[in-house]
Amino acid sequence: MSQTVVQRLQAELDALWLVDPHTHINPHSAPSRTLADILGYHYYTELAHSAGIPREHIEEPGLSPRDKVGRIVPGLAAIENTVQYSWLLEICRDFFGFQEERITESNWERLYDQSLTVLSAPGWEREVLERSRLSGVFLTNDFDDPLQDFDTTFYIPCLRTDDLVFRLGQPETRGRFQKVTGQEAWEVAGLRRGISGLFAHFLTNHARACAISLPPDFSPSPVADAVVEPLLAALRHGRPLALSEQAILSRFVFWCLAQECAQARLPFDLMIGVNRRVYPAGVYQGQDLFDSRCSLLQYAALFNAFPQVTFPISVLAHGVNQELVSYAWIFPNVVTSSHWWYSNIPAYIEPDLRARLQAVPQTKQIGYYSDMYKLEFAKPKFGMFRRVLAKVLAEDFVLARGWSESKAVELGKTILCDNTERIFPGR
Amino acid sequence: MSQTVVQRLQAELDALWLVDPHTHINPHSAPSRTLADILGYHYYTELAHSAGIPREHIEEPGLSPRDKVGRIVPGLAAIENTVQYSWLLEICRDFFGFQEERITESNWERLYDQSLTVLSAPGWEREVLERSRLSGVFLTNDFDDPLQDFDTTFYIPCLRTDDLVFRLGQPETRGRFQKVTGQEAWEVAGLRRGISGLFAHFLTNHARACAISLPPDFSPSPVADAVVEPLLAALRHGRPLALSEQAILSRFVFWCLAQECAQARLPFDLMIGVNRRVYPAGVYQGQDLFDSRCSLLQYAALFNAFPQVTFPISVLAHGVNQELVSYAWIFPNVVTSSHWWYSNIPAYIEPDLRARLQAVPQTKQIGYYSDMYKLEFAKPKFGMFRRVLAKVLAEDFVLARGWSESKAVELGKTILCDNTERIFPGR
Amino acid sequence: MSQTVVQRLQAELDALWLVDPHTHINPHSAPSRTLADILGYHYYTELAHSAGIPREHIEEPGLSPRDKVGRIVPGLAAIENTVQYSWLLEICRDFFGFQEERITESNWERLYDQSLTVLSAPGWEREVLERSRLSGVFLTNDFDDPLQDFDTTFYIPCLRTDDLVFRLGQPETRGRFQKVTGQEAWEVAGLRRGISGLFAHFLTNHARACAISLPPDFSPSPVADAVVEPLLAALRHGRPLALSEQAILSRFVFWCLAQECAQARLPFDLMIGVNRRVYPAGVYQGQDLFDSRCSLLQYAALFNAFPQVTFPISVLAHGVNQELVSYAWIFPNVVTSSHWWYSNIPAYIEPDLRARLQAVPQTKQIGYYSDMYKLEFAKPKFGMFRRVLAKVLAEDFVLARGWSESKAVELGKTILCDNTERIFPGR
Repeated sequence: MSQTVVQRLQAELDALWLVDPHTHINPHSAPSRTLADILGYHYYTELAHSAGIPREHIEEPGLSPRDKVGRIVPGLAAIENTVQYSWLLEICRDFFGFQEERITESNWERLYDQSLTVLSAPGWEREVLERSRLSGVFLTNDFDDPLQDFDTTFYIPCLRTDDLVFRLGQPETRGRFQKVTGQEAWEVAGLRRGISGLFAHFLTNHARACAISLPPDFSPSPVADAVVEPLLAALRHGRPLALSEQAILSRFVFWCLAQECAQARLPFDLMIGVNRRVYPAGVYQGQDLFDSRCSLLQYAALFNAFPQVTFPISVLAHGVNQELVSYAWIFPNVVTSSHWWYSNIPAYIEPDLRARLQAVPQTKQIGYYSDMYKLEFAKPKFGMFRRVLAKVLAEDFVLARGWSESKAVELGKTILCDNTERIFPGR
Repeated sequence: MSQTVVQRLQAELDALWLVDPHTHINPHSAPSRTLADILGYHYYTELAHSAGIPREHIEEPGLSPRDKVGRIVPGLAAIENTVQYSWLLEICRDFFGFQEERITESNWERLYDQSLTVLSAPGWEREVLERSRLSGVFLTNDFDDPLQDFDTTFYIPCLRTDDLVFRLGQPETRGRFQKVTGQEAWEVAGLRRGISGLFAHFLTNHARACAISLPPDFSPSPVADAVVEPLLAALRHGRPLALSEQAILSRFVFWCLAQECAQARLPFDLMIGVNRRVYPAGVYQGQDLFDSRCSLLQYAALFNAFPQVTFPISVLAHGVNQELVSYAWIFPNVVTSSHWWYSNIPAYIEPDLRARLQAVPQTKQIGYYSDMYKLEFAKPKFGMFRRVLAKVLAEDFVLARGWSESKAVELGKTILCDNTERIFPGR
Repeated sequence: MSQTVVQRLQAELDALWLVDPHTHINPHSAPSRTLADILGYHYYTELAHSAGIPREHIEEPGLSPRDKVGRIVPGLAAIENTVQYSWLLEICRDFFGFQEERITESNWERLYDQSLTVLSAPGWEREVLERSRLSGVFLTNDFDDPLQDFDTTFYIPCLRTDDLVFRLGQPETRGRFQKVTGQEAWEVAGLRRGISGLFAHFLTNHARACAISLPPDFSPSPVADAVVEPLLAALRHGRPLALSEQAILSRFVFWCLAQECAQARLPFDLMIGVNRRVYPAGVYQGQDLFDSRCSLLQYAALFNAFPQVTFPISVLAHGVNQELVSYAWIFPNVVTSSHWWYSNIPAYIEPDLRARLQAVPQTKQIGYYSDMYKLEFAKPKFGMFRRVLAKVLAEDFVLARGWSESKAVELGKTILCDNTERIFPGR
């Protein structure tokens, strides 16, 4: 019985169109060009490397796309159990007509050719969007992205601010900042003016969010201008900042961003908990990990200081999900946001989602984002989430609480589709 | 098959009478007087506020009960998914004859009137107790509660000690202490005499437990009298304590309480992990949160020092449940106690209960308490727990281990009913 | 349907022969001699003690095996719900022909006699190994174990190094070290020579792993020889080390062990997270607990420094499992290893296993070890794991991902059997 309910709910959820509220899509090159773009996704390179393929082998400079795929395929046998592999198989089956049980060293070349035909067909971008039922895609844009030559009402800009907060002490970042804002930022006033200018630029171009990823030990707090002036002066004179000084500057810039979000009524996506370069010998984008000893209490001052800013929160550690549920249940401006990275597997999505649906107002939950780099991944990733969502709705609402199936689907639609529009309104 | 077993077990569990081992019931006004007492429960005000209703709107001074309900009802649509809303609906349906699917701005007034008829009928207190199958109700009493004019064998006193441990440095608390104990407490001897007097007063009035809620960073340890005397002297001279001094005084008073519990053979309920006023702009009782970075290792010295004291432990963070299971499995004086506050939703009750039933002696588990402020909540809250308990007993004992259903029900009865009498014996 | 799939998978998994990759078996006395060896397992003594049996009662010196059993049996009623009790019952039923529902004060003596007949029969060791389908058993050997007079290809030596890392400052440990290595270890060179000698001795005797258990706050890092020389000199002159000095020496020895593992291509089992003697008044081996505030980030420097060493990691805290999954997904040399101690109950095995199977390459997972002290426990403990494994394979692979049952069994076999040979190869 339960299985049938799940299937009916899933069919309803599968039919819904939605906006993907967080991706790394390049709007100038949104779909994959070859299978290498798909197999080159860090999930496959890092898992294949973890299973024994040397990094140098995968990342040898000058490899053709076909050769790159050929280098990764031998690592796939060891990862067939992973859910990430199931996304790959789903892409190959649904989009490229692949019909075998596994991708092997003896069948990948045929698959490569088949996929090339599909991916290079005219209209593939439109087709993959339609088949994935995407009606909009949020981007992740560097602060100096010109945001030009693409449709910003479909590919929606989002101001990503990691560089500003954590790397403003570096000459390269300062150079980019100066170039795009016209501000030297050798003093607080110029820094603020520059940041305001960035927000204005992004808002003009239909940005609907500011976003940042944060390490587990980050704890935002206000910093007085007078504390920061000497740090900026030091940079001006070419003296690099000590770690503790850099941390102060980071907190200062972060707080400025929150102030700008308040001014602009822009939600501030916080992706909390990543340690960068924990495994520096890893493949590209396969070097970051986390420390689950992290608490949202670190953000209480921020949530209290900016009641007018909505903070969609993603947590990397499953262990922080209960805090996220509880903070979203208490703070009007805290919103739960998707299932991020190492928590983005059904084993963690299911318990995390279950708790959110039981205790957070339904209007304050962003069900899912794909975090994808290429459009082909929306379908299998959202598909995975829809399956888990259907299961939780069936078990906890239809069976346990006697809800009608249509009411359960309505709840699913709220967190999967409606809340994105509600929380990140267009202007 | 499994569903049928669950239902049969649940029916058996539903039929059991029990003592509720922790509530905030006012014995002089135990049932709700109006629907405002029910909708005024912090779960509804805080969730409605979280969903967008301004605090000032809900808590405007001088609101009539009817108007207060009218202010909260618009916030209910957003929280229909929550399990707390399901308690509300169950109360309205089971007690007030409400038959609609949701409580809305267009039907709440009729519900209000219906409920008023029920709540104001003579004998409602007796009726709600019977329909909830409650044969006793533990209270939460301030240390200066006179404990008079109610039946202390049914409404069982419990000495709540947060004020003593955390606010004895405040003039208002000291005044209350002096008034009720006759001790000035300007020195350790007087402080100890006063505390002993409180225990004597509570024991005379059939108290069965001492209780306290504790922040996540609290770590009890003994403090020498000589260290505390100067702090009490400082207070005598009107010098407020520094935070570090207050922390010493807190540890000292806490240790005195444990000594009194040892003397009186009184269990000491520890509710571990709450940070108060994390969101100070929140509604009444909707301001507290937690930091899941908390370990029972902080309590090892206490458990070792007082082998003769039973410590029923509630943890706020789901992440601490495995430690609780393990400490109760090793320490004879550590007992698991219910599913507290932010962990009191099926998403956390189920895994937490499952681990306890698999690894803690059955005699050392207090299954559940309601934590209610008004009697009407015992039925839906215990009902929620009974459903989860039936599910876990069916899956883990009847199906996985081949237990008979009657043996499984017996285990359920042990943790739901018998252990309360065993662990908090009457005298 | 699901139940039938589970049963079919379980039957297939039950038929598999395997090597148990971590036990505390004494190869000279591997099976139990009497029921006291079984009931004397710390799980029963500590749980019975936790339920109220005084330690002195259980551990009275000079008790005969029969009397010892008689002392523990009264504590069993309170722990019938535990999964550990289910292992006991399974042993008594499967091996000793016990047919009653529970072991009580009125039937244990008959059980004792029955078991004695079985345990003292010639060939019992061979029989229990066969009925448990064990084709090899890893041991836990002190560094000064002579490793003689047993078949080291079946009972496989493993160099346990807790004493070396944490107790080398103690005269007793130093005496043993000097005796077995011929090295005084009053200076770094001698210490290193001694450790190398130990590895040579173990490798000659077919050792397949080095192993250690570690407290939650341990964080390995390299230590310069020059920092350690004065500490060894202090020991030479009889000056005991301060705690901070001992910690430095521990890190130094630990790093030497990792270097030897690299040299010898020996996997280094890390069992992370135990605090020793948290409850010092507890029964033998029933005194240790943990602090779940522990992160694998503490081991990042180690994993990076020794890419050629495989680290099978066991974590005591369920809360660290997601980190383990993620570190094993990123680091090629990190392997997940079984479900240890307080995490070795189905309530934690199931979610932990589910996450590992979804996100860690299948070749990098050691499904289970028994950790047993007596051979009789392999069958019920592996049986428990096989049941959970069958359930997860059925739900997450056969039902959710459409895998054939034979493919699911193949995955089960990989983590249950094949990986032990792959990760700890014989030479």
